[in-house]
Amino acid sequence: MTDLSKSQLEHRDMANAIAALSMDAVQRANSGHPGMPMGMADAATVLFSKFLKFDPSDPNWADRDRFILSAGHGSMLIYSLLHLTGYKAVTMDQIKNFRQLGSITAGHPEYGHVPGVETTTGPLGQGISNAVGFAIAERHLNARYGDAVVDHHTYVIAGDGCLMEGISQEAISLAGHLALNRLTVLWDDNNITIDGPVSLSDSTNQKKRFEASGWKVIEIDGHNPQQVASALRRAKKSDKPTLIACKTTIGKGAPTRAGTSKAHGAPLGDEEIAGTRAARGWDHGPFEVPDSVYKLWKRPGRKGRKAHREWKERLAASDHKADFERAMSGGLNEGWLETFQAYKNKVAADKPSMATRAASGKALVPLTESLTDMMSGSADLEGSNKTKTPATSDEIQAGHYGGRYLNYGIREHGMAAAMNGMSLHGGVLPYSGLFMVFMDYCRPSVRLAALMEKRVIYVATHDSIGVGEDGPTHQPVEHLASLRAIPNVYTYRPADALETAECWELAVQRDDGPSVMALTRQGLPAVRDDASTNWCERGGYVLQAGEGADDIVLIATGSEVHLAVEAAERLAGDGITARVVSVPCLDLFMEQDENYIRSVLGKDLPKLAVEAGIRQGWDALIGRGGAFVGMDSFGASAPGADLFEHFGITTDAVVTAAKGLLNR
Amino acid sequence: MTDLSKSQLEHRDMANAIAALSMDAVQRANSGHPGMPMGMADAATVLFSKFLKFDPSDPNWADRDRFILSAGHGSMLIYSLLHLTGYKAVTMDQIKNFRQLGSITAGHPEYGHVPGVETTTGPLGQGISNAVGFAIAERHLNARYGDAVVDHHTYVIAGDGCLMEGISQEAISLAGHLALNRLTVLWDDNNITIDGPVSLSDSTNQKKRFEASGWKVIEIDGHNPQQVASALRRAKKSDKPTLIACKTTIGKGAPTRAGTSKAHGAPLGDEEIAGTRAARGWDHGPFEVPDSVYKLWKRPGRKGRKAHREWKERLAASDHKADFERAMSGGLNEGWLETFQAYKNKVAADKPSMATRAASGKALVPLTESLTDMMSGSADLEGSNKTKTPATSDEIQAGHYGGRYLNYGIREHGMAAAMNGMSLHGGVLPYSGLFMVFMDYCRPSVRLAALMEKRVIYVATHDSIGVGEDGPTHQPVEHLASLRAIPNVYTYRPADALETAECWELAVQRDDGPSVMALTRQGLPAVRDDASTNWCERGGYVLQAGEGADDIVLIATGSEVHLAVEAAERLAGDGITARVVSVPCLDLFMEQDENYIRSVLGKDLPKLAVEAGIRQGWDALIGRGGAFVGMDSFGASAPGADLFEHFGITTDAVVTAAKGLLNR
Repeated sequence: MTDLSKSQLEHRDMANAIAALSMDAVQRANSGHPGMPMGMADAATVLFSKFLKFDPSDPNWADRDRFILSAGHGSMLIYSLLHLTGYKAVTMDQIKNFRQLGSITAGHPEYGHVPGVETTTGPLGQGISNAVGFAIAERHLNARYGDAVVDHHTYVIAGDGCLMEGISQEAISLAGHLALNRLTVLWDDNNITIDGPVSLSDSTNQKKRFEASGWKVIEIDGHNPQQVASALRRAKKSDKPTLIACKTTIGKGAPTRAGTSKAHGAPLGDEEIAGTRAARGWDHGPFEVPDSVYKLWKRPGRKGRKAHREWKERLAASDHKADFERAMSGGLNEGWLETFQAYKNKVAADKPSMATRAASGKALVPLTESLTDMMSGSADLEGSNKTKTPATSDEIQAGHYGGRYLNYGIREHGMAAAMNGMSLHGGVLPYSGLFMVFMDYCRPSVRLAALMEKRVIYVATHDSIGVGEDGPTHQPVEHLASLRAIPNVYTYRPADALETAECWELAVQRDDGPSVMALTRQGLPAVRDDASTNWCERGGYVLQAGEGADDIVLIATGSEVHLAVEAAERLAGDGITARVVSVPCLDLFMEQDENYIRSVLGKDLPKLAVEAGIRQGWDALIGRGGAFVGMDSFGASAPGADLFEHFGITTDAVVTAAKGLLNR
Repeated sequence: MTDLSKSQLEHRDMANAIAALSMDAVQRANSGHPGMPMGMADAATVLFSKFLKFDPSDPNWADRDRFILSAGHGSMLIYSLLHLTGYKAVTMDQIKNFRQLGSITAGHPEYGHVPGVETTTGPLGQGISNAVGFAIAERHLNARYGDAVVDHHTYVIAGDGCLMEGISQEAISLAGHLALNRLTVLWDDNNITIDGPVSLSDSTNQKKRFEASGWKVIEIDGHNPQQVASALRRAKKSDKPTLIACKTTIGKGAPTRAGTSKAHGAPLGDEEIAGTRAARGWDHGPFEVPDSVYKLWKRPGRKGRKAHREWKERLAASDHKADFERAMSGGLNEGWLETFQAYKNKVAADKPSMATRAASGKALVPLTESLTDMMSGSADLEGSNKTKTPATSDEIQAGHYGGRYLNYGIREHGMAAAMNGMSLHGGVLPYSGLFMVFMDYCRPSVRLAALMEKRVIYVATHDSIGVGEDGPTHQPVEHLASLRAIPNVYTYRPADALETAECWELAVQRDDGPSVMALTRQGLPAVRDDASTNWCERGGYVLQAGEGADDIVLIATGSEVHLAVEAAERLAGDGITARVVSVPCLDLFMEQDENYIRSVLGKDLPKLAVEAGIRQGWDALIGRGGAFVGMDSFGASAPGADLFEHFGITTDAVVTAAKGLLNR
C-alpha cells in the first residue's frame, strides 16, 4: 500500500467502518447482503460526510436532504451510516441484532422502524421511483414556501436490479421530463447480479439510456473519493437530474469473493472476513469501531446541526412558518370540513344522478380548494378520471413546480411510486387517477404504501364490467377482492354522489394508509338524501329497512346498491321485506365490532350480496349459505348495460336470487 | 392532389379502405379509437401487402410471420386488415358489429376470438413484450428444427403508451441483449396520447433509448410507402431487433381532429368523417369497399398461400415433421407420464424432508428430460428458484438459441409477458422462477395468460413468512388470495415432495390456463407415501381420517399441512379425532361438485383452516363460524421459524384453535 495522506487515511477508516460493520452483522445474522455495502462504502462515505445535509439529533428536520437506498438489500450500508453518524436509535446492539425479531434493523430498511430511513425498500426499482416523488415534493414546496424554507436534495443509491426493473424507466423518464435537477442517483455499477455477471441478462448502455431520458450522466471510479466528490459537485450544479455511474467492486476487499456474485447475498465466512480486514487495512475486531473513527463520523452531523439551527432562524422569520409546519405535520387546513359539509348538504338536497367518477370530480372541487396540500394527477386519463379541479389545474412542468397537477403519463407504476415518495416527503397529499383494472400495474407500490402506512389516494375509475365496449382487458372483475386482500388498504366503492363525497372525506382524513376510490364509468341514481352523518365511516350501514321485522338482507356496494334498492321495492310488492345494506368500504366494515356488524346485517336474516365483481371475500359476511349476484369469469366487450344483462347482474336477478334464498 | 402513379393509387386505395372501415365501425359502435388505424393505415398496408407472410385460409400456419398490435385500442386496424385480406371469420357484418355483444370484433383484439389475432392486447406495453417471447420461440424452434421448417418474423405496431409503460423497457433490453433480429417494431410516432401531446408527460429520445438497448433504429415518414418498405427491408437484414419510428398523423385526413388527441378515443362524427373521405380521396359509402380494392387486398394472401404450399413440401421432407407437429399442437412427448410415475414412486418410497422449492427442482429433472418443449428460466434467482435442470442447462444467448434456459434478468413483468408470447407462439412450454411476492410485479401479464387460456407456469418460491429475514417486503401474505382471485389461474401449494410432483404433473398437463407453483423456502417433512393416485388432481383430498366418526376437520395447504397432521396427533391424545384435509389447489377444489367437497370436508364437522396467508377466500369452505390460523397483517424480519412462532402459526395454535372451536 502506498503512503496515504491524512485525508485519505480518514476516508479509508470511515469507509472501512461501514464495510466491517456490514460484513460482521451479516455474518452474525448468518443472513444478508454484505457485498453492496462493501462496494459502495467509499461513495457513501463521501456523500454522507461531505454532501448530505442531515441532523442526527432530529431525523425529521423538514429541510434535510433525503437519502434513499433503492438497493434495499444493502441495508447494512444505511444502518452503518446511521449508527456511525450518531442516530441514537441505531445502537451497536441493533447492529448486532441485524435481521432478528424485534430489532429495528430489519433485513430491508423499513420506514417507520428506523429514524433516517426515508422509505421502505427491497422490492427493486421502488426506491429510485419514490425518489422522483420526493424531488417533485421538494420543488413544489420550494415554489410554495421559498428558498429560505425548502432547499434540499434527494440522493439515491441504486443497483443493477433497480435499473433493470421496468418501473425505473417510468421514473427516470418522468424525472427527466420534469428536469428534477435536485435528484441525484448513484448507480452501484458493480456488474454483478445474484445469478452472476450482468452480462448474463443485460447489455444496456445505461449512460445512453439515461441521457435519452434527459439526464446528465457522469461516469467515475466509485472507489475514488475525489472522483465521487467531484461528480456530486457537478450534480448539484446540473440543470437536469444526474446519474453518477460508480464503477465498483462488489464485496471489495474479500480475497476470493470480491467482484463475484458470491459476495452478494450470503455471509462471507470467517476466513474471507479475516482476509478482507487485512486487505482493507482494518485491524479491529468484529463490531469494534475505534473512538478516532467515531470522531471522524461525528463531523457531518455537527455541520448538519448548525445548518439546522440556521434554517430554524430562517423559518421563524418566514411568513409561511405556520402553514409550512401544518403541511409538514400532515395536518389538514382549518375549516375544510365545514366547507365540505356544505357541499355534502347540497348533494343530499339535489340527489343528482351521475357516475361516481363524475361525483368524485365534483367533490374534489371544494376539497382541493380548501385542502391546499392536495396534489392531483392522472396516468393520461384526466378526462376519464376527473381528477383535475380549478384549484389544481395549474400543471407542474420542468421549471414550473408551483402547480398542483401532474401529467404522470402512461406510467401507473411510476405514478404510484412517486406518490409514495411525495407522501413520505410530507407537505403534500397526493391523489391521482387511473383505470381501476390497471391498479395491477402499480400493485407493488400500493402494497408499499400500505406497509408504510402512507396517505396516498388512487382514483380508480371504470370499476366493473360497466366499462363496456373496451372489454375484458379493461374490466375489473377480481380487483375489488385483490385490493381488499392487501393489508391496510381501504377500498371505497361508493353508491352515489353523496357516498362518494363521504368516502373522499374519509380518505383524506386517513393518515395511516392508502385508499382506493373505486368509481363507476356509468351513471347511477342517488340512493340517499341525508348528509347529517357520514354513514360511510363504519364501512357499511343500513340504507333502508322495514318498519318491523325484515325477511332478508340485501348487501351491495357501488353501482349495485341501486339494484338492491329496486329489488327491495319489487320484493315488497310480493310481501317480502328486504333490508338494504350499503357497504362502501368492506375493509372498514370488517374492522367494526361484531355487535355493530350484527346490528347492520340483522339477526339471522338470510343474506344476499350483490357486487359486479367476484364472490371472494363476501363469504365472510354471507357465509356459504348466502346468495351472491356478481361475476365468476372475465367480462366481455359490449355496451355496459348489455353486459349487466348478459352476466345477470340486474334487479331481476337480485329478486330471483332473494326468492330462491327464502324458498330454500 | 398531384397525379399519382398506378402503384401509388393502389396503395392509397388499400390504405383508405382500412381508414374508412375503422372510422365507420367506430362511428357505428359509437365507441372506439379511430385515430390510430387512420394514422397507421399506410404503414400497415405496406407491411401486410409486401412483407408479412401469412395465409388467410390457414391462420394457424406454423411458419407464418406474427403480427402483434401492441396498441390494441386501434383494433379496427387489424380487423380491417383481416377482413380485407380474406380471413373468412372477419365478415363485413362483424366489422359492422364492432364492440357489440357476441361479435368477434371486440373492443380490443382478443386472442381466441378472431383468427389472425396472435395475442390479446389493450393493456399497454404487453404486446411489444409478448413479441419478445414470440421472437425467442421462433429462434429456438429454428435451432431445433432448421430453416426449412421455422423461418419467420415477428412484427409489432406499438404506440407511445406502449413505450411509456415500464414493461417495454424490460422487453426491449431483453430483446436487445438476445439480439432478436427477427423482431421489428413499428412505432406509431404520432406525438399524441389521450390527454394531449406527448410533450405533456414525456421528453424521451426514443431513438437513443432503443439504441442504448442494442436496437437498430430507423426513422421515417410513416405515410410514405417507399420509406416504409425500405425500412422494413433494412430491418429484415439487421443483426439486431429494429425499431422503425414512423412519424404519423393520428386520425389522418380528419379536417379538424387529425393530429390531435380528439382523434384518439371517440367517434369522429358524421361531419368529420365526410371531410375525411374527401381529404383522403375515398368516395365510397360507409362499409363500402369496391371490388377493385378487395382484389388488390387479395394479392398478399395468394402469395402467402403459395409460400405455405412450398413450406408444407419442405416440412413433409423433413425428419422433424412428427416432432414439430406434436410440439406445435401442444402435445406432450410420449412416455413422459411413465417416467414421471417412476419418479413419484421413488419419492413416495423415500419420503424426503425438503423445501418444496427443492422438491420442485428435483421433479423438474425427469420432467424436462422427457418434455422437450419445456423452456426454463428465472428472474435472476436461479439458485433460489431451482428451475435449471440438466436438460435445460444450456443457456439461450445472442446467436445461440438452441438452449432451454433463459436468464430473464430482474424483469418479472417482461418475463411473464415473454412467456405469454412463447406459449402463444407454440412449440414451447415456458416455465420460470421468481420470488412469490413479486408475482405482483408481473400480475398484468398473469391476468392475460389467464384470459387467453395459455399454458404458462410460474415457479413462485418463498411463499410465506417462511422467507424469514428478508422481511415483510419479501413475504407473501395476501398473494395466495390475490392469485386465487384471478379467474382461470390455478395456484398450487403442495405440502411435500410428493404433492409437489403431483402438482407439476397437473400444471404441465393443463392446456387451458396458467399455473402458479407456490413453494416454500424452508424444509418440510413428507406427509404422504402413496403415489398410486395423483391425489392433487381434484384440488383437495382427505389426507388422514379417523376409523369411525371424526370430531373436527383440519384443512391446510403447503407448509401448514404438517402442522395439521401434528395437531391431529396431539388432539388424538386428548381423545379428539381430527380429519386432515390437504388442499394443494383451492381453485381446483372449489370447482369440484358439491358432493365431492362435502365428502372431503365431512358432514357438518367443525372446520378449521391453516394457511400462512390471509383468511380471505377460506370462508367459502369454513364459513364465518369456522376457525382460521394464519396471517392478518404484513410479516416481519426475523428467522423464519421465529416468525411462525411470533405470528402464531404453529401446531400449538392449531390444537388450541381446534379445542376452542369444539368448546364453543
